[in-house]
Amino acid sequence: MSAPSGVVTLLTDFGLTDPFAGILKGVILREAPSVVVVDVSHGVPAQDLDAAAFYLAGSFPWFPTGTVHLCVVDPGVGTARAALAMRACGHYFVAPDNGVLAGVLARDPHADVRRVDPERLGLSTPSRTFHGRDVFAPIAALLASGRNAFDTIGVSHEPVQRVVPRPTRGSDSVSGRVIVVDHFGNLITNVPGAWIRDPGAVVEIGGRTLRIVSTYTSANPGECVGIVSSFDTLEIARRDGSAAEALKLGAGTTVKVTWRSAA
Amino acid sequence: MSAPSGVVTLLTDFGLTDPFAGILKGVILREAPSVVVVDVSHGVPAQDLDAAAFYLAGSFPWFPTGTVHLCVVDPGVGTARAALAMRACGHYFVAPDNGVLAGVLARDPHADVRRVDPERLGLSTPSRTFHGRDVFAPIAALLASGRNAFDTIGVSHEPVQRVVPRPTRGSDSVSGRVIVVDHFGNLITNVPGAWIRDPGAVVEIGGRTLRIVSTYTSANPGECVGIVSSFDTLEIARRDGSAAEALKLGAGTTVKVTWRSAA
Amino acid sequence: MSAPSGVVTLLTDFGLTDPFAGILKGVILREAPSVVVVDVSHGVPAQDLDAAAFYLAGSFPWFPTGTVHLCVVDPGVGTARAALAMRACGHYFVAPDNGVLAGVLARDPHADVRRVDPERLGLSTPSRTFHGRDVFAPIAALLASGRNAFDTIGVSHEPVQRVVPRPTRGSDSVSGRVIVVDHFGNLITNVPGAWIRDPGAVVEIGGRTLRIVSTYTSANPGECVGIVSSFDTLEIARRDGSAAEALKLGAGTTVKVTWRSAA
Repeated sequence: MSAPSGVVTLLTDFGLTDPFAGILKGVILREAPSVVVVDVSHGVPAQDLDAAAFYLAGSFPWFPTGTVHLCVVDPGVGTARAALAMRACGHYFVAPDNGVLAGVLARDPHADVRRVDPERLGLSTPSRTFHGRDVFAPIAALLASGRNAFDTIGVSHEPVQRVVPRPTRGSDSVSGRVIVVDHFGNLITNVPGAWIRDPGAVVEIGGRTLRIVSTYTSANPGECVGIVSSFDTLEIARRDGSAAEALKLGAGTTVKVTWRSAA
Repeated sequence: MSAPSGVVTLLTDFGLTDPFAGILKGVILREAPSVVVVDVSHGVPAQDLDAAAFYLAGSFPWFPTGTVHLCVVDPGVGTARAALAMRACGHYFVAPDNGVLAGVLARDPHADVRRVDPERLGLSTPSRTFHGRDVFAPIAALLASGRNAFDTIGVSHEPVQRVVPRPTRGSDSVSGRVIVVDHFGNLITNVPGAWIRDPGAVVEIGGRTLRIVSTYTSANPGECVGIVSSFDTLEIARRDGSAAEALKLGAGTTVKVTWRSAA
Repeated sequence: MSAPSGVVTLLTDFGLTDPFAGILKGVILREAPSVVVVDVSHGVPAQDLDAAAFYLAGSFPWFPTGTVHLCVVDPGVGTARAALAMRACGHYFVAPDNGVLAGVLARDPHADVRRVDPERLGLSTPSRTFHGRDVFAPIAALLASGRNAFDTIGVSHEPVQRVVPRPTRGSDSVSGRVIVVDHFGNLITNVPGAWIRDPGAVVEIGGRTLRIVSTYTSANPGECVGIVSSFDTLEIARRDGSAAEALKLGAGTTVKVTWRSAA
């Protein structure tokens, strides 16, 4: 029931070379001049719903409650897939109904999901190629400005389920996979940091076994290691370099953490 | 006669790795602390006036009327080329006099163009290499803050003409060319979407003939097709990939749309 | 003694593909909702303290006095290196104690440097990998919002010294080196423009001798020349192209400017 914070965040796969992200901001400011618009990232790999779902779930908690998070990764633009608004964890979300909200949904069993009918909100007929501009940004502006209360934004809706890759937990190991490769070449996995019992645990990935350290500087120059990432999950990092390049691995690679009880 | 909206947009070829775009914002905030500065794009290909003119004309209408649009793509920096301020379509524009305003000028026969004398406005002597910071950003700040009314910003001026590539229209075909390649590898052309009579129309480009579809998902996996872009012009897109890479084509390529009357 | 301007700038090596820069903004807005956050650059080469120190010193003066400049290039994250706050030249700075403030320190002999104890400020225990989010952004927010006066933010501290590459000056030559390569492929050096006596001066770099011009358009097509950069230092530029690519040179290259008294 959080009041809107007046902040709208943007997470897209638009990149920054074209004016598309800027146009989203124009549309929002036209509807809601006093809203603050913040880029979370426009660098989601094109149409990569897993990466977008992971980034959305990992970034929203750092914003003020009542923030509206607009996520436009939308391979189905122009088709009949629904436009969604969601209230979860004290925040608001606006996105296409393609599973990109799965990471947030997993955190809040009481999430309230609505299907939004753009026509009922008075939005003009959208283009076939840019619903970010014509549908999703206007909805975000209506919510963030408080002009439309969440309860009036649409009707209850069962969102498309997306099988988010989930880590698994055994008695002496945990397994998961690489979800994204970050700017530094770190391999970010979905294995919760809290699942890793520190002393003696090692990471197996791509046929190698790596030790787990607690700070980047604990690694030797050029060494690849496991470490708890900024998302509180296991990441594979390389001291002073790119683990992705050194190991020639990327998103989708499976990873296993094993340990033995104090021997 | 629109009142300033308090928003300034930035469109440049500065890229985002250097602090140049940030410095523009600092200069604007120093002069006009309550202005909101929005990036449209800093990814215009270096010194590409056609791309900049196309992006400027395609993005400004989505912002509030009274917005000041600052466009700095300026191969002639340090020479005698004039600094311009323009009022057109209810918006304001600030740019070097090098033709980059051509796309907007084509939309408003009543555009009011002024030549700005930085010295008369009290600006200090500019550097030879960064008029974005020393000339154009201060002018934008003066207009956006309302400190200087548009009518007092400079004297009437006939801007440099730039031959914007224009599409042509025949009885059973229309022709144009690729203006920019976007982040997804789509080839964005200058052929108005409204000129394409849908049923039976095909696109000829680079020796191939492509069909025209109405949504990305109507294409087969890997197929290159024509579609109406977010700029309401024809674009060549590839399902789940980059048309530019698949066709090995880029800006400047000619394109032709043909159809036959219902046979 | 400048009052906070309400602006926070960000300079990091995070890149823009991941949500890390956006998360910094979320944390700042959560603490200080009315602060304006401006990106200076997130494109500092990974862990390149020289480039970061150069960009910080070259960009901060263009912002309003009282601005808080947050610089997170932090190879030692998770170690015992201190978190610093500094007041210098009428601005505020927040950064790790690794020498990245050296360029600003060189400009203000009266800089006031404080070591900040996150725990004393009531910040929760930081992660081991993302002090930008857990330590530096909260400190910047406390300063920018005025909640904590600078004098109460920490105890006086002697910062780590970093040997910033400095240009040297002889009777008929000056020497320096390339600090960064900008987006256009210009080689930006640390040789002050004011040191170059114009008529007859030439640049020696990478075994070549280049003439010095006053505007980009004074160079011949394809010619590499010396010119005074936007940072008021010597840069090596190529007309209509990238000097870095044409000369195959980059950061660290030595450069010499020589002249002869009017012969």
